[in-house]
Amino acid sequence: MKKIKVLLFGSGAVGSFYAGKLSQGGASVSVVSRSDYDVVSNRGISIKSVLGDFHFNPERVLKSGADYNDNPDFIIVATKVLPEVNVYDIIKDSVTPESSIVLLQNGIDIEKPVAEKFSDNEIISALAFICVSRKEYGIIDHQDYGRIILGRYPGGKSEKTTILADLFKQSGLPVESTEDVIAARWRKLLWNAPFNPLSVICGGADTKELLGNPDVKKLCMEIMNEVLNLSIADGHPLDLSMISENIENTEKMTPYKTSMLLDYENRRPMEVEAILGNALKIADRLKISTIHLKTIYAILSLIDEKNLKSAD
Amino acid sequence: MKKIKVLLFGSGAVGSFYAGKLSQGGASVSVVSRSDYDVVSNRGISIKSVLGDFHFNPERVLKSGADYNDNPDFIIVATKVLPEVNVYDIIKDSVTPESSIVLLQNGIDIEKPVAEKFSDNEIISALAFICVSRKEYGIIDHQDYGRIILGRYPGGKSEKTTILADLFKQSGLPVESTEDVIAARWRKLLWNAPFNPLSVICGGADTKELLGNPDVKKLCMEIMNEVLNLSIADGHPLDLSMISENIENTEKMTPYKTSMLLDYENRRPMEVEAILGNALKIADRLKISTIHLKTIYAILSLIDEKNLKSAD
Repeated sequence: MKKIKVLLFGSGAVGSFYAGKLSQGGASVSVVSRSDYDVVSNRGISIKSVLGDFHFNPERVLKSGADYNDNPDFIIVATKVLPEVNVYDIIKDSVTPESSIVLLQNGIDIEKPVAEKFSDNEIISALAFICVSRKEYGIIDHQDYGRIILGRYPGGKSEKTTILADLFKQSGLPVESTEDVIAARWRKLLWNAPFNPLSVICGGADTKELLGNPDVKKLCMEIMNEVLNLSIADGHPLDLSMISENIENTEKMTPYKTSMLLDYENRRPMEVEAILGNALKIADRLKISTIHLKTIYAILSLIDEKNLKSAD
Repeated sequence: MKKIKVLLFGSGAVGSFYAGKLSQGGASVSVVSRSDYDVVSNRGISIKSVLGDFHFNPERVLKSGADYNDNPDFIIVATKVLPEVNVYDIIKDSVTPESSIVLLQNGIDIEKPVAEKFSDNEIISALAFICVSRKEYGIIDHQDYGRIILGRYPGGKSEKTTILADLFKQSGLPVESTEDVIAARWRKLLWNAPFNPLSVICGGADTKELLGNPDVKKLCMEIMNEVLNLSIADGHPLDLSMISENIENTEKMTPYKTSMLLDYENRRPMEVEAILGNALKIADRLKISTIHLKTIYAILSLIDEKNLKSAD
């Protein structure tokens, strides 16, 4: 049987881990690397994982998508979602009519600009539930979780989605296919919208510190409620019970530093637009009141701006 | 003529400056000092001021109010307003039936607990509009402004208020007497409620940075609007025009770091309760919606808690 061909853009922690898993699952996985090109092309990627350490040797390591010159079954985009990162420009030279474009990224409504540019390609949206970080170029540390949810965008079934899910399954990873991936994104935003921003805004707080303050816990729930209302108005309704479930599960978790807080502390740009800005655009369009989301968006935007200035 | 006797509690920047001015105006001013007792009793207090440098030699420097053993016309309280600072305990041994208690402090509704404990004494409430800091024990740096507003609490005229205002006038300080000092406190809170907390919450931002972000500027105005609604419900109505005036004046100011931000950066407790907590209590009592004040209160409380822990 012909091997499934995968091309990864964005060899950060999340991208490297899941691409490595696809390789374990039997795919032929190539990687476009930039800052870490030398290291990855020489040594591949070492993944220290709670699910078992493994080494990921990409089929090919490229400096740009234009060098691929092949017909990839899946193009995986695992870059951060930032206004200055133009996915179209990054992947366009490698996309063929048969390529499915897999967006393995954070945020809500992040598929739309890519789907508009590649209107003839299938778009698959994927959400990673994982604690993973890149210690140095070519070395990934997978600390916890790992489940991935994926589905055709904007909805429905597809053969390619099943193929991708099966590759992950063969690697032993918990994977879930969904016919309503937009609902899955709202579901993830329910957690991300309060905890990621507040972890930064509250002076570098972990989940335990946030939920330990009764007023902040209430604020988290109010933000979640706004996300819930958005999901309902958007036609992908979450259930009210998810708010208390999310809070209770987070209270049981080992105190956790969000990825946004790690970005902030390392003076990297935060995904303010993907997580909050896009939600606010939907709120504007659907005329839903999201007073808390607006407030934390305003505060977080200024913090991000100042943080990046001080990194210059 | 018998000299007016003044006893100051709290020889920080604000207290020292205004007590020094009263001394210049002709009063006999004694000071209760604690951490800075040795320095102040040996050298007095040097005040480097944009209005002209001067030296303030207190009549007496005491370690506690119990050592005063006299009949003070005015007891000035210039301590910070913090839950752990009990004004009653601090001043009780020096209060006589003739003493007027002057609260030269930040915040809203901060007079009530003192007025309840000293129900037979006149309470004078005073607001300082000043940029002043203590460089080291006994050395005060007055950078800008200096106006003081004072009035009998909860309202009306009084002879003692006039005497106090006259002493300040004689020192050359801009002073304003008011028969509605509660309105004056709302007026000051209109500025303090957005700018003090947001300067800390937004990652250490000065007034120019805050107002330079359109979303944060809008948030400032929304917070001001909540304060305005509170002032109306409380029977001391501010005028809507004050919001845009305040914003415009602040935009014209030299970029300014708030006192709350200075406290935060120096890991000192912030006046979260005096400025936000008390406003929220009034909002609860009067059933006024103050969603933004609640949000910044929650965030700021957690920041304060973490800041003080890290200072231990």
